[in-house]
Amino acid sequence: MSKIRVGIVGYGNLGRGVELAIKQNPDTELVAVFTRRQPESINLITEGVPVYSIDSAEEHKDEIDVMILCGGSAKDLPEQGPKFASIFNTVDSFDTHAKIPQYFEAVDTAAKKSGKVSIISVGWDPGMFSILRLYGECILPEGKGYTFWGKGVSQGHSDAVRRVEGVADAKQYTIPIDSALEAVRKGLNPQLTTRQKHIRECFVVAKEGADKAKIESEIKNMPDYFADYDTIVHFISQEELDREHSGMPHGGFVFRTGKTGNNGENSHVVEYSIKLDSNPEFTASILVAYARAAYRLSKEKVSGAKTVFDIPPSYLSPKSSIEIITEFL
Amino acid sequence: MSKIRVGIVGYGNLGRGVELAIKQNPDTELVAVFTRRQPESINLITEGVPVYSIDSAEEHKDEIDVMILCGGSAKDLPEQGPKFASIFNTVDSFDTHAKIPQYFEAVDTAAKKSGKVSIISVGWDPGMFSILRLYGECILPEGKGYTFWGKGVSQGHSDAVRRVEGVADAKQYTIPIDSALEAVRKGLNPQLTTRQKHIRECFVVAKEGADKAKIESEIKNMPDYFADYDTIVHFISQEELDREHSGMPHGGFVFRTGKTGNNGENSHVVEYSIKLDSNPEFTASILVAYARAAYRLSKEKVSGAKTVFDIPPSYLSPKSSIEIITEFL
Repeated sequence: MSKIRVGIVGYGNLGRGVELAIKQNPDTELVAVFTRRQPESINLITEGVPVYSIDSAEEHKDEIDVMILCGGSAKDLPEQGPKFASIFNTVDSFDTHAKIPQYFEAVDTAAKKSGKVSIISVGWDPGMFSILRLYGECILPEGKGYTFWGKGVSQGHSDAVRRVEGVADAKQYTIPIDSALEAVRKGLNPQLTTRQKHIRECFVVAKEGADKAKIESEIKNMPDYFADYDTIVHFISQEELDREHSGMPHGGFVFRTGKTGNNGENSHVVEYSIKLDSNPEFTASILVAYARAAYRLSKEKVSGAKTVFDIPPSYLSPKSSIEIITEFL
Repeated sequence: MSKIRVGIVGYGNLGRGVELAIKQNPDTELVAVFTRRQPESINLITEGVPVYSIDSAEEHKDEIDVMILCGGSAKDLPEQGPKFASIFNTVDSFDTHAKIPQYFEAVDTAAKKSGKVSIISVGWDPGMFSILRLYGECILPEGKGYTFWGKGVSQGHSDAVRRVEGVADAKQYTIPIDSALEAVRKGLNPQLTTRQKHIRECFVVAKEGADKAKIESEIKNMPDYFADYDTIVHFISQEELDREHSGMPHGGFVFRTGKTGNNGENSHVVEYSIKLDSNPEFTASILVAYARAAYRLSKEKVSGAKTVFDIPPSYLSPKSSIEIITEFL
């Protein structure tokens, strides 16, 4: 059986995660990595796989079944998504929620024109969490959905702290509030404000001589990022930050609570949760499973942009329909 | 917009649950119930809906878009599944795991011949749990899956206890063992025997003068049903049974634990759990969501037997693709 030939665009944490995930999926193989950096400067984990300049990608279009786009949502994907969809089947993890509809449109137009298929916004949120939110509403239409994130490192919030004057380095953890989780889990259907759902904990390395009180106040009052939350700020050394906070753990919860019966007399609680040692590696594993789906859809001559909602669960598996029925149903 | 016209075959707990679920889904309407009992003896909750003899179903084939089969898996569905698939689009909750492949074949043959679509084995297990088991393996291929059931009433085990000589009535609860759940949740990947996963608790009403010690021993040593478990037997009055144990609560857990990284250095735990006041009403809600999918597939001229693995999540929702993206992605 021939393997699904996968290319990776962008070799950061996510790209490396995809490389590792491909090793766990024997029906896939990594055939090339594309980078904006000097290709010679990149050392892959996999031996014998070439690294090319991103500008030469089109020359390799017949060697690659699915390209997994591992760039960032802010700057890379808005341009790369449509561009690569005009040449390759693609999978990406575009996660700027508010801009997904316009991103979908741009990728869809490009993919329909090229006859390729692109699955966008794949990962755990957007991704698995989105699927669970949808299933939740469909199976308990009279109910309420909740999503909590963490405990985990938020890259965006860590970046925001690092931009504060006097900050040398920082990590920010998003932490769901236990009492809120418990109220939801009990089916109490609480109305929760932003402040009641999560707290934010920052570990900050201050530059020498910096005004710590000022840094703390600036963080805590930062609009959008921190002002609506209870925020805890710890000042620690660079050494401690590197030693204790270098990982990329994350996690979260999706709940659906709802009622059935003639008078809503029966309550039901559905809970999905994840606890991850490595956010990028888990996301990467999901991307590779959806690359399999993209490959299969492409074989069926499907084209255009798709989301996780469009993909039958069986398309993620290398197993046959009868194997899946026997092992999982 | 015209509604999806649903028929119900079999008006027991599940059939009544489907009737109630249809009321929660405004794009569906109940058009008829079919029964093996005297139609006049059935009182529906919904006013103005006719009840017919099951033998007259075919006469109503142009009035019904999807027939939801609410009979039992042991005796009703093996015959009704293929029979109704030869006339209607159908959804059922066939749950005899070992016989699903042969049931699938029989329904598939009938549905392909009639040009109808039949989604089999829908509910929470088989059903949502099956989907979560499959997603789990696809996104964490190097890992381990666990399913626990309960705390909840097992109909089959309650029936088995009621068949013991000297038993007037009984209810059996399946209860997952907390320490086993915790070990899995911690990512310890325990090897668990049947006895280590669940306990079984029986509430038994003995007939007057019956030998309770003998009943207890017979239950505890019953092969397949109880012998491999730690079983607790309580003798109570019929009054107490009716008062305290008349509900049909259930629940359960699906876990996937797995490792990623170059040397499996990162662990991940995915947990899905449900806690239900009414097992049949929750199952019924899922059946109605999949009836929507069957209707849509049928409009696309798809025919044959399908399982939950074949159905894209979006097909369960009455919302448009862009609404789903905006609200859930």
